[in-house]
Formats: sequence, structure tokens, C-alpha cells
Amino acid sequence: MIEVYSWATPNGHKVHIMLEECGLPYRVIPVDIGSGAQFDPAFLAISPNNKIPAIVDPEGPDGKPLSLFESGAILLYLAGKTGKYLPAGTAAKYEVLEWLMFQMGSVGPMLGQAHHFRIYAPEKIEYAIERYSNEAHRLYNVINKRLGLSPYIGGKAYSIADIAVFPWLRSWKNQGVEMSEFPHLKGWFDEIASRPAVQRGVQVLAAARKPMMDETARENLFGATQYKRH
Amino acid sequence: MIEVYSWATPNGHKVHIMLEECGLPYRVIPVDIGSGAQFDPAFLAISPNNKIPAIVDPEGPDGKPLSLFESGAILLYLAGKTGKYLPAGTAAKYEVLEWLMFQMGSVGPMLGQAHHFRIYAPEKIEYAIERYSNEAHRLYNVINKRLGLSPYIGGKAYSIADIAVFPWLRSWKNQGVEMSEFPHLKGWFDEIASRPAVQRGVQVLAAARKPMMDETARENLFGATQYKRH
Repeated sequence: MIEVYSWATPNGHKVHIMLEECGLPYRVIPVDIGSGAQFDPAFLAISPNNKIPAIVDPEGPDGKPLSLFESGAILLYLAGKTGKYLPAGTAAKYEVLEWLMFQMGSVGPMLGQAHHFRIYAPEKIEYAIERYSNEAHRLYNVINKRLGLSPYIGGKAYSIADIAVFPWLRSWKNQGVEMSEFPHLKGWFDEIASRPAVQRGVQVLAAARKPMMDETARENLFGATQYKRH
Repeated sequence: MIEVYSWATPNGHKVHIMLEECGLPYRVIPVDIGSGAQFDPAFLAISPNNKIPAIVDPEGPDGKPLSLFESGAILLYLAGKTGKYLPAGTAAKYEVLEWLMFQMGSVGPMLGQAHHFRIYAPEKIEYAIERYSNEAHRLYNVINKRLGLSPYIGGKAYSIADIAVFPWLRSWKNQGVEMSEFPHLKGWFDEIASRPAVQRGVQVLAAARKPMMDETARENLFGATQYKRH
């Protein structure tokens, strides 16, 4: 059974949703990133960038165990293992991959910065709040235009590109955007949100996550000293 | 011949280096992002996130032209097309992919924010400078530890993971880190920098890029109104 080292964050939910969509059995090992569990040496051995999610598949390639970090790589691996949610044809495959990379390189990191400066940072810095709220608006616009041309983010079929983007857009209120301004995006979002596997995936660990940010959590998540803990 | 819509930035150089390493003929079409060329509708048609690089391969899958955006997807495509710099074995392939995703999701976006707040932002914001300088230090530490365990970032052989990370680390001075503090990283960096294909790749468009940031460039690159230009 695949072991999933994870937490109830957008990057964690990508993998939870994919496992649910594929019908793969899995066991969740919570990594409470607010309490600093991501710096545990046993976790760093499988996730050297101290981020969730990571997986260990005891039935990996050639029957050997495989450990893997980075949500984008895990989605590709699970798609390869099951043959699901990534088209086989070369052109269609790379269409999904470019949008998956768009999620990895822009949607995740930049919406993450919007969350940081709008919600979590101890001081309100107008320049940074405006910078990342504008970027969120720009990204929603890019996605909305795409979904005006294509039923799914990666093309004609539901794919790992949708699974990667969706969990990040659940927090649109924290990103300074109004989802209803983006009708193609909103229609797609509502469709994805109604999928039973998605509904199960986003519930994984949801009850374990503390809603409030205390000083310990702030230090473990954003502290100046965290890089010394490796 | 592959057409490369690009500029002399780390993400552009990833693709220039890969094309040089693979010995593929290519033609560069400059997209001057300081002057706003990334908002040209013809460019947006192939790169809807208004970012360089993008490519058009007239000899794509099934002999049909293929256009592709996102540097990480382009590296995967060129690796697939040539059979180079991405291992064929499943375990070795996913080891490269997790580190490629680490570059796409952390190294690029976070070092980019360090550049922004340390160099380009019109005001000096101590909190943001410290946040992203610390993150740069953390990332260099992660890479340094990796290169203490493995000769290359993606594993035993030079791969697209090295090609993706290297161009971002050329600007270590702008990221608030001292490369000599990271000996494994430094040794790897010097080795990669000495490769003839890498030396050719990082020269692509280098003379075209203006060193100074004026108001027009600032608006096109970071302006509050840029998302309205789509």
C-alpha cells in the first residue's frame, strides 16, 4: 500500500485526489508542518526539500520500493503507474505537461505568496500584498481564458493538470480574487468540486490541521532560522 | 528547425543549454519582456501565461508542428525527442523528475522573488528581503546536501535537472548567498559551467538584454496593470 507523507494543504490534496481518482489504496502519515515535523531526519531522507507531500510505494518499478517527493513528480508517477489522467499520445501528453508545469511554477508558488502576505505574515506590507494579489488576478485570468477554449486545463480530457490546479483555487478568497469574475474558471471549478473522488481527497487530514497560526507554527513555516534546521 | 521564443533569463537559458547539449538546430526569436513583447497576441497564442520560453517544433509528433510553453515541459519534450538527459529506467527517471519539479516549484519561483525584492523592487522592504534571502540560503543548502550524496542533481548522470537548476544559480550574488559556503554545490557548478554547450547556451541573447531597469520595463515586468493586458 502506498504511504503518503502529507498534510491538508493544496500540494497535499493534489496527491490525495489523484490516489482517490485512481482507486489506489493508500495510508496517510501526517506530517504536521506547523509543529516542525518536516525537519525530522526520517522525513528529510525521503523529502530533502522539507516539503510535503512525499510518497513511498513499496511496489515500485521492478518490484522495488520507490520514494518520491514533489507533488508534480508524484502525479506523473501515479499517472504512469495506472495509465490514468495523462494522455498516451505525444502531443496531448505535452499539452497536459505544459499546464502541469504552469501550476508547479506559477499557480502554486505565486498563490502561496499571496496567502503569505495577505494572511500569514506578521506585518501588512502593502507593496507585497498588491504584487501577489495582482499576480493571483493575472493567473485566474490565464486559467479563465484557457477554460474558454478547452473544457479542461490540460485539453479535452480531465487530467493531472486539473488535479494540480484545483486545490489551489479553493482558497480564492485568501488570494484577493473574486471567482465569479471568471465564469469559465468558475464552471470548471464547480464541475471538479462535484467529483466524488475530489470530495474525498480534500477531506484527507482536513480535521488535523489547526486553523490558527501561533508563534511556533509561524517559526516552523516561515522563520528566519528554518534553513538552519536541516 | 525548432523556433525558440526566448530572452536571456534563467528560464530561457535552460532551453538554450538543452538545445546546445542535444545538438539540435534552432532559431531564436527574441521576446523582449522589458518592452512588453510578451503581451503580443501572437506570442500569447503559443504562451498563454505570457512567459518565455516557448518553442514551436515544425517536426513535432506524427510530423505535425507542436508549440509548447513552460521551460520544464520543453526540457521534457526535448529529452523525449532526442532520448538525451533523462534516464530510460523508471526509478532513475522519476529521480530526475522530482528534482526537476523542485527546480520548477522552488528554485525558480523563490530565487525569482529574491531577485525582485533585493534588486528590482522600487522600495527596499526588509521583511521580504529577509524572507527570500533566507529561502535562497535554505535552497542552496538543500542542493549542497544533495550534491554531497550524488554527483548530479538528478542522480548518477548529468540530466535535465542539472540543466534546469544551473542557470538560476549563476545569479547567487543577487540572491544574498555566498556560493563558496556550499562546497558540493560549488564543485558541481564549476563543472557544469565548464561544459562547452552550457557556455554557448548562456550566451544566447545575452547581448540583447538591457542591464538597467527603467520605468517601462518595471511596468511590463511587475506592473499592477500587466494582468489587464491579456
